[in-house]
Amino acid sequence: MMTKEQLIEAITLYFNENIPFNKLVGILVEEVSVEQVVLRFPMKPELIGNTFMGILHGGVTSTVLDVAGGLVAMINAIDRVFQSDPAMIQEKMRKIGTIDLRVDYLRPGYGEEFFASATVIRHGKKIAVTRMELRNEKNEQIALGTATYLVG
Amino acid sequence: MMTKEQLIEAITLYFNENIPFNKLVGILVEEVSVEQVVLRFPMKPELIGNTFMGILHGGVTSTVLDVAGGLVAMINAIDRVFQSDPAMIQEKMRKIGTIDLRVDYLRPGYGEEFFASATVIRHGKKIAVTRMELRNEKNEQIALGTATYLVG
Amino acid sequence: MMTKEQLIEAITLYFNENIPFNKLVGILVEEVSVEQVVLRFPMKPELIGNTFMGILHGGVTSTVLDVAGGLVAMINAIDRVFQSDPAMIQEKMRKIGTIDLRVDYLRPGYGEEFFASATVIRHGKKIAVTRMELRNEKNEQIALGTATYLVG
Amino acid sequence: MMTKEQLIEAITLYFNENIPFNKLVGILVEEVSVEQVVLRFPMKPELIGNTFMGILHGGVTSTVLDVAGGLVAMINAIDRVFQSDPAMIQEKMRKIGTIDLRVDYLRPGYGEEFFASATVIRHGKKIAVTRMELRNEKNEQIALGTATYLVG
Repeated sequence: MMTKEQLIEAITLYFNENIPFNKLVGILVEEVSVEQVVLRFPMKPELIGNTFMGILHGGVTSTVLDVAGGLVAMINAIDRVFQSDPAMIQEKMRKIGTIDLRVDYLRPGYGEEFFASATVIRHGKKIAVTRMELRNEKNEQIALGTATYLVG
Repeated sequence: MMTKEQLIEAITLYFNENIPFNKLVGILVEEVSVEQVVLRFPMKPELIGNTFMGILHGGVTSTVLDVAGGLVAMINAIDRVFQSDPAMIQEKMRKIGTIDLRVDYLRPGYGEEFFASATVIRHGKKIAVTRMELRNEKNEQIALGTATYLVG
Repeated sequence: MMTKEQLIEAITLYFNENIPFNKLVGILVEEVSVEQVVLRFPMKPELIGNTFMGILHGGVTSTVLDVAGGLVAMINAIDRVFQSDPAMIQEKMRKIGTIDLRVDYLRPGYGEEFFASATVIRHGKKIAVTRMELRNEKNEQIALGTATYLVG
Repeated sequence: MMTKEQLIEAITLYFNENIPFNKLVGILVEEVSVEQVVLRFPMKPELIGNTFMGILHGGVTSTVLDVAGGLVAMINAIDRVFQSDPAMIQEKMRKIGTIDLRVDYLRPGYGEEFFASATVIRHGKKIAVTRMELRNEKNEQIALGTATYLVG
């Protein structure tokens, strides 16, 4: 049977390699724990939204914040049921879904590389609420987010 | 000088052809007026988020709703200043930005083609608030959204 | 045993008479069904927020929208378990809670009487999502809301 | 002419004594600066929402978070125009308004006294975005909020 570390590694690999839209955007999982998830992605021309100003498309921001929040919610849900059999864990992963998402856009998305972090602010058997943040390589805060996930 | 119809046509072309991330997702402007904007895009493998279930990535949903809301907010802002010179219109287009976005995910994103519509629910000189909806080709409601834009 | 009609009447009475903050604001249940809840309340000096302009406090708006959304979510949750025993229904009422609420303030809250309506836009065993609207006696739209409730 | 300190004192007095709904709820301004606003209010029977559990009405929570966010947004807007004449400051106070509010309810509102704090996360000439938090006397986090205000 997998250890918790192996399971987290497998989920990281799945997020990096097997989710098509994550690959299209170029999202990479940088750090995963029950406390915090950090994703990163480099700027590339396809991610631009405002060609007058050369900044990140708002949809990239909302995508990455949702992925970060969903991953930290999933890791926490899995951590809860880890004592149980792996089948239940896969069931968790299959069923987790975003209920709602709010994004606050604070600064224009200038940057060469971006980092999205997420933490859980409410965690129950049925729902999890997370907060997320997007920063660029200069550590400037681009956007904040809050999301609610169905986890059970 | 451009007529209002020519201007709307130019903006539609810009959204379809010149915004890189819109092209990456495959968003096409279907209908544009002061009253309503409708976008559409076909499902394709790169847009999948949940490979267990073969459904649309939540980030595609939030992206398309934000684009629809932003476009109807922009059309309304331009409509207001249309009497003024074209330079001001370009200024409007350059500066419009999402302040915040909320997405409510109602059903799994199954479908072969998707349609996002947006209308303005509050329109002032400085900010606009819009409501958006995503449906599939069977007219099933996938998600609803609300967003606030800086328009002046 | 109570019929469904008697149960709805009992809940209406409870909302009107037994929730202290509802009484303080002056909220009255006007209409209750699975499809829609309508509340109403008269303007009174204590509800004013902006004394320069004599308009409703934004907190009154958010309160009434949350009460309307919570009531329609509760009625739908109860409708689901009505075949079961009354003890479970009381359990439902006890445990229902707001997860998150968004209010969009569209117009200043001028008016002599206000009406808040709510409908369910997503209804599952665990969570319900509702949309709400506040209008005055001239049928002017003051605010819109969206809320997520834990119902199971 | 008023100093900035006198102006803040006058605004505090206005919020404590002259806003009818603030008085009805029992909100008191505890701390006011450009960096942070803190409000407090004691529990009282009229503020209860769930009589089964004796907890704070969700509408009280949303009210207090909106008041805290609005006050810190106002203080920041006034700070910007302080060099100008007092007439403009009163104009600011008159016109400030909530565009939208999101509240995340994290824990049941048990407590004898509550504290709402607010800080500005985005501050422009036209809009301000704030984040708010409600805690009880045991420092337990009851709710978080985010709001957008029109300030210019």
